[in-house]
Amino acid sequence: MKLDADLIVTADYVLKMDREQTVIENGAIAVKDKKIIGVGTEEEIAGKYSPARTIGGTGKAAFPGLVNTHTHAAMVYFRGLADDLPLDIWLREHIWPAEEKWLSDEFVFDAVELACLEMLKAGVTLFNDMYFFSDAVGRATKKTGMRAVLGAGIIDLPSKVAGTTAEYLENAERFINAWAGDELISTAIAPHALYTCAPENMARAKKLAERYNVPVHIHLSETEWEAGEIRKQYGRTPVELLASTGFLDERIIAAHCVWLTDREIEILAETGVGVAHCIESNLKLAAGIAPVHKMLKAGVKVAFGTDGAASNNDMNILSEMSTAAKVHKAVSGDPTALTAKQAMLMATRQGAEILGLGDITGSIEEGKAADIVIADLTKPHLTPMYDVYSHIVYSMKSSDIETVIVNGRVVVDCGELTTADESEIIRKAVYWGGKISPRNAF
Amino acid sequence: MKLDADLIVTADYVLKMDREQTVIENGAIAVKDKKIIGVGTEEEIAGKYSPARTIGGTGKAAFPGLVNTHTHAAMVYFRGLADDLPLDIWLREHIWPAEEKWLSDEFVFDAVELACLEMLKAGVTLFNDMYFFSDAVGRATKKTGMRAVLGAGIIDLPSKVAGTTAEYLENAERFINAWAGDELISTAIAPHALYTCAPENMARAKKLAERYNVPVHIHLSETEWEAGEIRKQYGRTPVELLASTGFLDERIIAAHCVWLTDREIEILAETGVGVAHCIESNLKLAAGIAPVHKMLKAGVKVAFGTDGAASNNDMNILSEMSTAAKVHKAVSGDPTALTAKQAMLMATRQGAEILGLGDITGSIEEGKAADIVIADLTKPHLTPMYDVYSHIVYSMKSSDIETVIVNGRVVVDCGELTTADESEIIRKAVYWGGKISPRNAF
Repeated sequence: MKLDADLIVTADYVLKMDREQTVIENGAIAVKDKKIIGVGTEEEIAGKYSPARTIGGTGKAAFPGLVNTHTHAAMVYFRGLADDLPLDIWLREHIWPAEEKWLSDEFVFDAVELACLEMLKAGVTLFNDMYFFSDAVGRATKKTGMRAVLGAGIIDLPSKVAGTTAEYLENAERFINAWAGDELISTAIAPHALYTCAPENMARAKKLAERYNVPVHIHLSETEWEAGEIRKQYGRTPVELLASTGFLDERIIAAHCVWLTDREIEILAETGVGVAHCIESNLKLAAGIAPVHKMLKAGVKVAFGTDGAASNNDMNILSEMSTAAKVHKAVSGDPTALTAKQAMLMATRQGAEILGLGDITGSIEEGKAADIVIADLTKPHLTPMYDVYSHIVYSMKSSDIETVIVNGRVVVDCGELTTADESEIIRKAVYWGGKISPRNAF
Repeated sequence: MKLDADLIVTADYVLKMDREQTVIENGAIAVKDKKIIGVGTEEEIAGKYSPARTIGGTGKAAFPGLVNTHTHAAMVYFRGLADDLPLDIWLREHIWPAEEKWLSDEFVFDAVELACLEMLKAGVTLFNDMYFFSDAVGRATKKTGMRAVLGAGIIDLPSKVAGTTAEYLENAERFINAWAGDELISTAIAPHALYTCAPENMARAKKLAERYNVPVHIHLSETEWEAGEIRKQYGRTPVELLASTGFLDERIIAAHCVWLTDREIEILAETGVGVAHCIESNLKLAAGIAPVHKMLKAGVKVAFGTDGAASNNDMNILSEMSTAAKVHKAVSGDPTALTAKQAMLMATRQGAEILGLGDITGSIEEGKAADIVIADLTKPHLTPMYDVYSHIVYSMKSSDIETVIVNGRVVVDCGELTTADESEIIRKAVYWGGKISPRNAF
């Protein structure tokens, strides 16, 4: 007698992204009660399970949902607001004033809905956020059915949400408690960066994170200026400074890590810090190119992040993989650097692991949550097919993603969001965009 | 009384890409007898012309068809055949043997159909090819309704198509004569590169090109090895060597130009050589990063090319623009380098100009051929909208391209090719792919 399943996914290629990076041809995945209960050939799974629904089929690839390990989702409303400008003008004259003027609970909720819509349609099932108005981020994310780690921002500067660092920390604690036990939303503490958050306040944030057993999400050595400034101020490189206080361990998710010495790379490897590599944002802001090839060789855990859409300008992990896999070849002078297979691991299991969710998601294995993407392989730009990893990393577009499952729920079905009204989300984006800036003159 | 038009295109934004890079909001384009006969606001054009058909509308952008200034279209059948390998193993053990084994008139025809399908759906209306079996390239291109400059390959090595350089040159001459006067296909002579085609044979090719007034399409200084080898063999840098023989002028389209001295950049500017910058291929093969920022500053005419899909792995100029605009910011340390507006110029008018077709296409101006792309701006990743150049370069995907017009003919209509059977093209690609390589083991 066959076992009940809620859903069976079938595909020409099932990429498990387990330790062996097994690819099953003519594979299938059985899902029940939000979890993966079986993975095997289509024949094996069909012989064992009786599903309520079957999706996928010929000409498809199924792989774990992609993971965006660093973003500021609500900044999607500032996409393209101010491009091709020097970093300080971009920040001081455009982004910060826009944030100061517009951020509110309502703004953040609406913006995050758009960000989740964009990410889900591009096969991203999990993101790691750092922003303010975190409750609004949580409610919007929850509404779309997406999985996220939401970091409450801590910064030594007053803003709309808090006047003092202590107040930010209190807010963070309240936020962590409010979302405790949620099955899709987990929380983190996000002290912004060493140049905006003093080491002692970083330490206070870390202590709170330890008490609640949540990750700490920071920016680290994004620009040459930042690395130089910290060295000038404290007499140590940023990573050495943080290491000296015992701050660095597996709980830390450090975004960017562009300007690192060899010693700093060693420390990141030794302490088990997870690095969120944001290649497209780093390129576009001319921040530099992180030494990913060296980090990977040294054993640093590196995954991909999009950063905010204001500096990218999208929230597309397929494109981050493609850009990174190409750029690091040229920069290292080695065409075998950052292979497609390696990039795919960083975008899935490695991403989940650095967010502390490696036991829950990131691969298609029995017992894990059913966070699964189904892509169409029959497009012109995906034929002929010789290697599924190559095609996903170097040729696949977000528009090839057909179906996205998060925690067993089909949230994107044949390219359409099932959990919220897409046209309403777009309409709200147009509304806010019109308020933020009248149409540019050319 | 209104004038007859075959077609009126309307869009929220019409990007003319004329000298002033005019953007017309709520704009329209009137087309008659394959040509653009009017460009203005929707109101102006509606008041003046009575069209047989109107396309476009609210939420759209219209811009000139994108130009791919360097490719080997037929290599699309080797897409993803051998990735993440050292260059010499990639070429000698995979690509060359595959070409030796598979190239034929039929193979090239079928492959080029797929390449044209992919390019047209991505908004590319004109490409510059270098390959063999050029008649088959021409017939397939013609069938899809695409515009192209097709270069007959010249190489000092025997192959299936010729035994000697003289024979290649004879073939090229025959090819040029056969396609003379075609309204979509123009021809070129394509001596491969200095390391495969001796300077005296380059000169013979140039002479032939002058006689027939066609462009010369070459590879130039793609790899460090190549630049060093030429210097070793001839005692001069590649550009200086070619300049010394009077080879360099506005007729030359030089692909890659990665390894250039400052003096070589000056020479390229002085002689008016057009450079086909292939950033994604250069990155992926770890060839290096061309000094585009310097070239643009020096006044070199630079446009974009995808190179063959075996080293890219797609034929997508939107993505080349995006990658180049980001990478050159980081490499030059200047976030204002290669702006979106500049990238868009390179992908359209500049591309047409370096191919010698600047009078015919590349911008939306009266008298030019109607080579027009209409894109949908209402996608999640394209909202909100502040700057249409930013959105096209940094956020738009090929799947946002809805309608493509070449020489007044709608060749892609609502995302579907109108000129050939897409599923049949895919079927043939799958067939050839299966012959070229049995499915890879993982």
